[in-house]
Order: sequence, then structure tokens, then C-alpha cells
Amino acid sequence: MQKVNIILVGFGRVGRAFYELLKEKYDHYRERYGLFLELRAIVRKSGTVLLSGTRKMVSEAESGSGEKSELSGWIQTFSLADLLEEFKSGVLVDCTPSDLKTGEPGYSLTKMALSQGWHVVTASKGALVVHPSELAAEARKNQLALKASGATAAALPTLDVGLHSLAGAEILAIEGILNGTTNYILTRMADGLSFSRALMEASEKGIAEPNPVQDIEGWDTAAKMIIIANKVLGTEIKMSETRVHGINGLTEEIMARAAQIGKTIKLIGRCSRESPGAPWKVEVGLALLNPDHPLAMVDGSNKGIIFYTDCMGYVVVTGGKSDPRGAAAALIKDIISIYWRDF
Amino acid sequence: MQKVNIILVGFGRVGRAFYELLKEKYDHYRERYGLFLELRAIVRKSGTVLLSGTRKMVSEAESGSGEKSELSGWIQTFSLADLLEEFKSGVLVDCTPSDLKTGEPGYSLTKMALSQGWHVVTASKGALVVHPSELAAEARKNQLALKASGATAAALPTLDVGLHSLAGAEILAIEGILNGTTNYILTRMADGLSFSRALMEASEKGIAEPNPVQDIEGWDTAAKMIIIANKVLGTEIKMSETRVHGINGLTEEIMARAAQIGKTIKLIGRCSRESPGAPWKVEVGLALLNPDHPLAMVDGSNKGIIFYTDCMGYVVVTGGKSDPRGAAAALIKDIISIYWRDF
Repeated sequence: MQKVNIILVGFGRVGRAFYELLKEKYDHYRERYGLFLELRAIVRKSGTVLLSGTRKMVSEAESGSGEKSELSGWIQTFSLADLLEEFKSGVLVDCTPSDLKTGEPGYSLTKMALSQGWHVVTASKGALVVHPSELAAEARKNQLALKASGATAAALPTLDVGLHSLAGAEILAIEGILNGTTNYILTRMADGLSFSRALMEASEKGIAEPNPVQDIEGWDTAAKMIIIANKVLGTEIKMSETRVHGINGLTEEIMARAAQIGKTIKLIGRCSRESPGAPWKVEVGLALLNPDHPLAMVDGSNKGIIFYTDCMGYVVVTGGKSDPRGAAAALIKDIISIYWRDF
Repeated sequence: MQKVNIILVGFGRVGRAFYELLKEKYDHYRERYGLFLELRAIVRKSGTVLLSGTRKMVSEAESGSGEKSELSGWIQTFSLADLLEEFKSGVLVDCTPSDLKTGEPGYSLTKMALSQGWHVVTASKGALVVHPSELAAEARKNQLALKASGATAAALPTLDVGLHSLAGAEILAIEGILNGTTNYILTRMADGLSFSRALMEASEKGIAEPNPVQDIEGWDTAAKMIIIANKVLGTEIKMSETRVHGINGLTEEIMARAAQIGKTIKLIGRCSRESPGAPWKVEVGLALLNPDHPLAMVDGSNKGIIFYTDCMGYVVVTGGKSDPRGAAAALIKDIISIYWRDF
């Protein structure tokens, strides 16, 4: 039995789902994995909520504003640095929004946590896209985990498969449908809807985010593929070197033309190289798939990935729930994998 | 950097592929994972081949028959017990044939290795089907790994995904196409071939084993699903409690009838229960799949598995090379997973 301190930063849709799921399944994690997953604090824009602290912290909180939050903790002015120091070690869970240009705030959070001996599990792509090598080196130096299932298609296993299930095999190329919003739009356009009608439907159903431009233009797919490639292939691919085309500009006529020749249009992220030893490249763009392509059947907000290998053939993974609860479950999976072994 | 002693038992198609792959990729495993995977000896029916031993063993071997094998090692009379004792610790790789009735010889080998502090990585199903709880308890007691990717669809990740990629989620049911021979036969029968013609073709192509009765009758699928269920769900399902129907008796007429109504016939292994808390059951039999079922497109000697979960949706894995080299790669993946962590 092991106690694991958890500090959650960010309380948007995924952060809130993480909080709920952890509360709901706390007993299951203890019984099945021997882990007490203890959420100590939630760092939000509107103030830190201390859920269970050291005696010193609780008394400080009570003698302070004494204000109780709806999450049955104390709202206090503890900074992240205070929390990391007070709880000594554990896992920082980063659910802050992704900024693919600056990598912030994830970059500063992750650096601070790693330098203070905390593992990091993230649902945020920015830091890993902008500063992958620096953060990987910092984690390695301190023998700490920096896990990113939540940032790489979440409940769909991508990094696990590439790093672990295919360990020892040489990966020759990776292809994926990594964005649920655009795949939903393409699926509905294949049903005959216009782009704008399909997008509106995706928004109404809560599949598309309020500002889906990063999804539509392909940047979200590119970011995920870059993180996967950097971790699995040991590359150092930058966004600026990546050719990215999204689904904007796609018309009903093009969809109809593809259907006429028996093809399916999908937004594919791809990492490949021209020959062994040549540099790896990431590209994102629309592809015409034959109906027997393993990703051609991945419809709606589903996602999928293919790893092509030298000695294990190709391995395709599809499914995995594309919602905040699925993403939260992926974060918890990453936490469990840090502490639990199956022997 | 870490040295790992490996003793291989069994030198059939998979054992030989393991030997070849390890030799071919030795440097890659060292560079990528920091592991020197040292194959010390091969225990075959025709005698043990010592590839690199302690000084004492080598001098004993040289002063003995002195006979060199084609594998550039010494053929000697060392028993497995001698080898386990002499090399102290490491991984026993079991590539002996599966006997689903007695579990031998895998059961005795595995017990001996675990009791002497060796990890076990197996491609053989028998021991895990006949004595799962006893062997799992023995491994747990000694904190040793007992890994079975090679016995559960090999290069197709099944146990990895169920145990690790879905850690924390509740698995509600598992379904799979787990046998390449029968799936090949069904695919060719869907093309219009008779059962016996399709079987002959599978034999000619080296897909079907010389005696494919365990595949045809569904026992191989059942054994794999039982091992997966016991490990992933913590069940103790026995073969005797399992309803198993194979593909024998399937006619061209039935195939044609299925095609007429737009369905695909597949041999599916399934683990499910009627309601939460009810006992888990494994069943193997022919199923009529709709064309949009994620396993309907798994053709030829390919395999596939679906895990249905509570909070991560369903996850489908397909592909993975169905040949001795793919199985060997799965054994090596399991060895790497014992010693290597990604942080």
C-alpha cells in the first residue's frame, strides 16, 4: 500500500472530470493497485483549493479566510511552489490549456515540479511541443516520470503501445486520426452535410470546443503526433518544421468526388522518413483512404493510430472515449503506471 | 546498463526465431534500453546447448564431449536445474509446445524457475491454462514476472492493453479474433473456397500448423482468452467451464447465406458476465458480425481484440504479425518490460 500525493493544476472540463473520477473510484484504485491516490490541492485561476493538507496547512487555512469551497476544501493563497514543498513528492497533474506557441503555463509548471522531485502527468500539449528535449532531460536526470497520455489522444492508447507494447521492434512509420472534432466533421460531411452545418452539429453535441480553430486547421493533430514521435522515436521535431493542412476549405463537392471513386477522406497525422537514417518528418493533411485501410472505418469522434514495425507487423489501435471523462481516465492510468507493476 | 541472463527452453519455430532475433538485434537492445540480453543456453530435446557459460561450465563442457553445435555452443548434459543455479537469476523463456490438458512441460519448468528466483516469459499456453492461480501466486510471492504476451496473440498487444493501457478503468467485456489459422480459413471461405480447400491453402502457406485441430476446434482461441481473462480480470476460469465451438462443420452454404444478409462470419472468443458481480464466462464460437463491427474487417491471418470499459469507451487493437518472428518479438518485448522503464 502506498500513498500518492496529487496536485491538480487547471480546473476546466478535463480537470473537473479528473476530480470527479478520482473521488468516484478512490476505493477501486486502492483495492486493485494498492494505491491511495490522494488529491491534496487544486490550483485554479480563482485560487487554490486545499482538500487535505498537513496539520500546519490546515490550521493556516482555517485561521485565514476560512472560506470553504464547493469542493469541500479551503480556498487559500498557497502557491504551487508552497504545495510542492509542503507535500514533498507525488504527481503534478497538468490540466491547463495548451498554448502551442509559448508552451505556457505548462512549461513553467512542469519545470518547477520536476526540479522539486515531482512526477508530472499532463493533458496539456504546449510544453511538450515547445520544449520537449529540455523537459525530457530534466525528468531523466531526476528519474521522474513525464507522462503524456492525456495529451496524445487520451483514452486511445498511443504512447503506451509505441513505447511498451512494441518495445524492441523498430518503428518504421506512425499514422493516426488524432482529433475527434475534425473526424466527426468529416464523417458528417461524408453523410452529405456542409462543413459549416457539420461544425455546428459538433459544437451543439459538445464535441467541438468553443474555439475549434486549432482542431480545424490541423494544429492539434500535429501537436499530438509531434509528442508521440518525440517520445517513441526519440526525435526532436519542431512544429515549425511540420507541414500542417487542416480540413478548412473542404467542400461537399470534394467529399462527393471521393465517394464516387470509393475513397474516404480523413485528416491524417503521419510521421515517417524517406529511408532508414534520413530525418523523420511529421505531416498533417487530408488523405484519400481505400475502404480497407485500417483507419477508413474510424468514424465520428473516434480516433485511431497505426504503428508500422519491422518485426511485429503493423499494429492498429482505435476507439477510446473522446470526452473529458476519458481524458481523466487516461491521466489516472498514467499515475497508476508510475507506481504499479504487475509483479 | 544491465546484464540479463536468458535461458531458452524449446527450439521449435518460435524458439528458433527468438534465437535469431536476439542475435540480430542484440546491439539495438543494448543501445535503446541499456540491456545486454545474454542468451546463455538453449535446452532442447536433443541436448542442452551452452552458448556462453561461467568459466566452470565452459571448462566442463570442453572437457566433456567437446562437441560443438551448429549454434556455436557446446552440447552438454547440463540440466535446466543446473543452469538456473549456475546463472543465479534472469529470465527463463518457455517455447515448449502447449499441452492444454496437462500444462506440461511448461508447468514444471515455470515452477522450477520461479522457485529459484527467475522471471518467466512464455509462448506456451498450457501451464497458464491448467494452473493459473498457483503459478500467479508463486510469481507474486517471489516478486517475479510471469509474462505471457507470446501465449496470447503474440505481436498483437492484448495483455499490455488490458493490464496497463486501461489501468484504472473497469473492463466490462473482452472479445477477440485470437487465432490466425481459423481467421485465414474463414476469410478464404468468404471468398468462395470450401473449408478443406481453404485449410489446405493455409497449410501450404505455413499459416496452419501440421496438426491444426486445436485451432480448428476453437481450443487455441479459448486458451488465449482464458489466459487474458485470468490476468486482466483476476478470474480463475477453467477450460472445463468454457463453451467452445470451432469452425468445423461450417459449409459454403452458411457462408453464402451470411453474405446475403450482409454479415461476416468470424470465430470470436468472448469473456463477459450477465451483470456486475455475476461470474465471468468465456465462450468461443462463430459469430455473425455487422460490417461496422470493429472486428469484421480483421481478415486473413490477422487477429484483433476489443476491450469494453466503463470510462474509456472501447479500445480495439488489430494487426500484429502472426508468424514465429512476431511471436519472438513479443517474447523480447516482455523481457524488456521486466527491466526497462521509460523514466
